Amino acid sequence: MQLIHPVILCGGSGTRLWPRSRKHRPKPFLPLLGERTLFQQSLDRASDPARFAPPTIVAGSAHCGLIEEQAGAAQGARLIVEPTAKNTAPAIALAAHALPQDAIMLVCPSDHHIADEAAFLAGVEEAAALAAKDYMVAFGIEPTGPETGYGYIRRGAPLALGNEVAQFVEKPDRATAARFLAEGGYVWNGGIFAFRAGAFLAEIEAYRPDMAAQVAQAWRGAQREGWQVHPAAAPFAAIAGESVDYAVMENTARAAVVSTEMGWSDIGNWDALMTARPNDGDGNLAIGPANLTDCRNVMVETDGARVSVVGLEDVIVVVDGGEVLVTSRSGAQAVGKLPGATQQ
Amino acid sequence: MQLIHPVILCGGSGTRLWPRSRKHRPKPFLPLLGERTLFQQSLDRASDPARFAPPTIVAGSAHCGLIEEQAGAAQGARLIVEPTAKNTAPAIALAAHALPQDAIMLVCPSDHHIADEAAFLAGVEEAAALAAKDYMVAFGIEPTGPETGYGYIRRGAPLALGNEVAQFVEKPDRATAARFLAEGGYVWNGGIFAFRAGAFLAEIEAYRPDMAAQVAQAWRGAQREGWQVHPAAAPFAAIAGESVDYAVMENTARAAVVSTEMGWSDIGNWDALMTARPNDGDGNLAIGPANLTDCRNVMVETDGARVSVVGLEDVIVVVDGGEVLVTSRSGAQAVGKLPGATQQ
Repeated sequence: MQLIHPVILCGGSGTRLWPRSRKHRPKPFLPLLGERTLFQQSLDRASDPARFAPPTIVAGSAHCGLIEEQAGAAQGARLIVEPTAKNTAPAIALAAHALPQDAIMLVCPSDHHIADEAAFLAGVEEAAALAAKDYMVAFGIEPTGPETGYGYIRRGAPLALGNEVAQFVEKPDRATAARFLAEGGYVWNGGIFAFRAGAFLAEIEAYRPDMAAQVAQAWRGAQREGWQVHPAAAPFAAIAGESVDYAVMENTARAAVVSTEMGWSDIGNWDALMTARPNDGDGNLAIGPANLTDCRNVMVETDGARVSVVGLEDVIVVVDGGEVLVTSRSGAQAVGKLPGATQQ
Repeated sequence: MQLIHPVILCGGSGTRLWPRSRKHRPKPFLPLLGERTLFQQSLDRASDPARFAPPTIVAGSAHCGLIEEQAGAAQGARLIVEPTAKNTAPAIALAAHALPQDAIMLVCPSDHHIADEAAFLAGVEEAAALAAKDYMVAFGIEPTGPETGYGYIRRGAPLALGNEVAQFVEKPDRATAARFLAEGGYVWNGGIFAFRAGAFLAEIEAYRPDMAAQVAQAWRGAQREGWQVHPAAAPFAAIAGESVDYAVMENTARAAVVSTEMGWSDIGNWDALMTARPNDGDGNLAIGPANLTDCRNVMVETDGARVSVVGLEDVIVVVDGGEVLVTSRSGAQAVGKLPGATQQ
């Protein structure tokens, strides 16, 4: 059986989980759920040598230090250092150049949480089988509510495994999302993909020929330095950045989706993180020294100062690096726009 | 006109405004409302030399440093250092010994807030006139709500100034307090008193002869040291501590009350302090670096760390000395019982 090549994308600006996440230490590199960081957990999930080749990591130079610290000595791993951030399509194309053209790539964000690894691995098998037939495969997440923060995928005709994609839908409003759930047949776009490397490059060539040429040129000029690969800066800088969803998935005639229920969360804000964490019987949870009196559904996370909370419900308190955040759970989505988060 | 002798009592354990108030720096010695501390404001209110003699301050030795720092060089002031804390009756009796027997004492706590000084001074005139006739005079505060945290005084027959006291009532429950307000004729016991020094000592002698003897003995053995007076420790330590309310006011046949509306607050918890402070149009207020987004009736006080609050109502956040307190306004009464407050 052909090994699957994990491609781990490390992007993200580190504002939505401020003040814990910072520009210099964004979400993937924090141990938010357990002792391993989200980035490490992304590596761990696709580390069984019986099934996976060593990972290809794509990241900006600002985070190479964190990656070298956290990835440890993964034998045969490769770190592609993006000269500039150009969104996901060019990043994946770089990885596709680095791999054999018949390699099956499993493209994973480095900042998501997946509670059910067995379900994830089952999805990987389906996706890999579809990718081997040159489908561009998206992971669909069975929706658990009318979320407005995700893209949706409408499932089309069933394939031997998974489904054709009938339609990609941008983040809908609440009413539209509720209608999708009522109608059924919609899944969230989880940002996880499987491609055959050569097939992916062919699709980029077909729909974004300029991008394809610029990535190819950047790759030809790449410098190797230990496990790091540095594509040429000038041609990469000239790329018009675009997501893989826009550049490939919404254009290709061979889009497929595998649907999974794997306890997925993009940990998009403090409320989502709170939901993903175990709590006591009253919905409370604390990381660091804390005292919760007469509280329900309160989360405290502190890097040192003791936090005492009295008489509150549905509140999140975060103390980190000299900043104190106190937010309602519903206000957590606005945290990324606070002065502290944007002016780091 | 005879000058009135202010007697400033500095007690208090510093738990209810924790973490700002601490055992070593209790409420009277904090600048909670404006730039002067509550203790300094207590001195300031009774500092007009045309009306007031220099103050007599009664305090424990733990706070002498703070008092010397904050009282400045009040000419002719006197600091009586209690060998041990024995509640208010013995403290006032010490001051009565220190003063001429015909002196009118105005006994004031050092940790209350009085917004309307003119009303206070008008009350002082009434009280002093009554005290000169050997009444034991309590300041009554016109109640603004059915508070359960204060003692109440039922007014009796009118005197030329003020009223006789019909009854002292311990802290009532909510229903009783509401009935008092509906019936009328009740005022809060503000803990401010006026006595003629000799008359006060005579009442102590009449109702608490042991206490009277022990205080007298402690005073006879007092050591003077600059402006400090140190009563003898052994006889004072033998006293059964008691409040002036129990020892004198509830026993005397000559209790009187003057009723005032002077914007009084005992700043008994963070919610009371918040109420006494000016706020912006949305009920928010911040002391120290803070960012309040989508908030109403939120108070932030921080000694350094920036505090960002999102989407909350009726919440108080205090950051001080490595402790973070987040409480609902209604929960503020429980703050004094938190581990951080009791285990200092």
